[in-house]
Amino acid sequence: MTDFVKIAVDAMGGDNSPKKIIDGIIHNHNSNKKNFYKIFGEKKIIENLIKNKIDKSYFELVNTTNKVHSEDSPLEAAKRGKDTSMWMAIESVKNKDCDIVISAGNTGALLVISKLNLKMIENIDKPALSALWPNKKGMSVVLDLGANIECSPKNLFDFSLMGSALYRSLYDNKPNVALLNIGSEELKGNETIKETFKLINDKQISDFNFSGYIEGNDLMNGNVNVIVSDGFTGNVALKTAEGTANFITEELKKALTGNLIGKISSLLNMYNLKKFKKRLDPRLYNGAIFIGLDSPVVKSHGGTDFIGFSNSLDVCSRIIKGNLIEKIKNNI
Amino acid sequence: MTDFVKIAVDAMGGDNSPKKIIDGIIHNHNSNKKNFYKIFGEKKIIENLIKNKIDKSYFELVNTTNKVHSEDSPLEAAKRGKDTSMWMAIESVKNKDCDIVISAGNTGALLVISKLNLKMIENIDKPALSALWPNKKGMSVVLDLGANIECSPKNLFDFSLMGSALYRSLYDNKPNVALLNIGSEELKGNETIKETFKLINDKQISDFNFSGYIEGNDLMNGNVNVIVSDGFTGNVALKTAEGTANFITEELKKALTGNLIGKISSLLNMYNLKKFKKRLDPRLYNGAIFIGLDSPVVKSHGGTDFIGFSNSLDVCSRIIKGNLIEKIKNNI
Repeated sequence: MTDFVKIAVDAMGGDNSPKKIIDGIIHNHNSNKKNFYKIFGEKKIIENLIKNKIDKSYFELVNTTNKVHSEDSPLEAAKRGKDTSMWMAIESVKNKDCDIVISAGNTGALLVISKLNLKMIENIDKPALSALWPNKKGMSVVLDLGANIECSPKNLFDFSLMGSALYRSLYDNKPNVALLNIGSEELKGNETIKETFKLINDKQISDFNFSGYIEGNDLMNGNVNVIVSDGFTGNVALKTAEGTANFITEELKKALTGNLIGKISSLLNMYNLKKFKKRLDPRLYNGAIFIGLDSPVVKSHGGTDFIGFSNSLDVCSRIIKGNLIEKIKNNI
Repeated sequence: MTDFVKIAVDAMGGDNSPKKIIDGIIHNHNSNKKNFYKIFGEKKIIENLIKNKIDKSYFELVNTTNKVHSEDSPLEAAKRGKDTSMWMAIESVKNKDCDIVISAGNTGALLVISKLNLKMIENIDKPALSALWPNKKGMSVVLDLGANIECSPKNLFDFSLMGSALYRSLYDNKPNVALLNIGSEELKGNETIKETFKLINDKQISDFNFSGYIEGNDLMNGNVNVIVSDGFTGNVALKTAEGTANFITEELKKALTGNLIGKISSLLNMYNLKKFKKRLDPRLYNGAIFIGLDSPVVKSHGGTDFIGFSNSLDVCSRIIKGNLIEKIKNNI
């Protein structure tokens, strides 16, 4: 089983766990026989959920009796001890028993317990939370999304290298990288961004093409593949995009089904509307990736369903097969 | 004509000016006979555009031969001199000849020339660029959108008072005010935001209800009427929302018209789709408002059409009738 990707799964985090997590694993397994799942959670419940649905050679169950709660502060979560499903899953990556760890649980806890257990990659000062974002031509990588509220030019510079490595490991393509700013002219923005611009320009990076600045309204035009930002701005941008998407699709629904003609023609057009919905399905780009530590840590959205979780498992295997960590180390 | 709102109009800024500007004035005049337009621009062209469409008692033409260019830096724009249409329009407000000034031209130039000519309201340290933003229940006011990249707690506190005054002058309602942040818990965010939170809480403002923090995904749920942010974050949020809206409506168009069934049912559903489009029409909330100076300055989007410009003229008259400046002074 040497070419298998060994994924440590915290089965106790997120809404409707562990059922959602196990259903996600089963769904993932049905389309991918190259993943091995080391599952941390309540053994009895999980055994019942998984029974006969996956051959035993594809998974291992580790019984845990303690877990991180969704409302825990990161400190409280860490204090719950080393026997939580989250801690043990992370530890199995630390011990090189697994290649990558995934959880749909408490984000702050996951970041802090990961930092407590895993080493930073040499010369990286801060790890970053990154995610995939849909655009007109495909997907882009955006980071940081909230792990670091304040960032130095060196941090943002590191993020550009890590983001580029992540993009390459997922899509095997040389990306265009840009800094999120409030104007595209060289003079705009705050001092940190201007210095980062200079830093990237001066270093003549070969790993990516530097596209300079990008504004919020161009995030989705698909010309840039990696978007770099401090965690505060990136978080606001991502959440604003989510909020806008919800607002618009709700307004659309209201408009399209507000009267009989609307209902009938929407029924007629169901196939197209479904295509549209599928294109924007947040489950497609579920999963934030915490990078900068010597093993990648994947955070699935707590509210996603088993299909979303299965997609995050796909991200896990693609990252490992794409040699993300090695690529980051080569860049730094 | 004492109850008239006297609007100074820079007719030479923005795409397709002065035609768009004059058509906007004519359109505005047709539904509102309580505005007087003092128009600054090339007299001969404008006379030709306006002839007989508005009675001469409703407007005055001031010939200008110089103008600010869209690609001018703010400094270059100021250096073009006091005979540009933009400068002269602003000056007419400074001289109390007009109540309010509007331009669809270069934003940076408008901010700088306004600051050069108009006094700050006492005890306000920085003026802010604010705009209207659609939400599920109506419209909210968002500020700052890019006039101030870095802000102190005092600045953000001032913005909350100015934003509240703007909301009241437009909608005559006590608003809920919130700070844009990356979490809703009291502990989240950077130091500036946390201090602002404390400042607003301690002062026990009676002019608005303080709702604490708001995250990007809640911007459009309509529970908050005034959203306060530094100019960098606010600008990124606004533009990201714009970009997301464009992305989604384009994807929708592609999905709905990708095949014959789609085209037929969309045709059937044209009325509803139009209703949807109208609800999201950016012309409805065209116009940013620069507040903090002793006269309000309105910036129409350079790329909007005459209907969008006419809507911005409406915003001008509502602001003046709502006594915006007086309300701000009372709040400070």
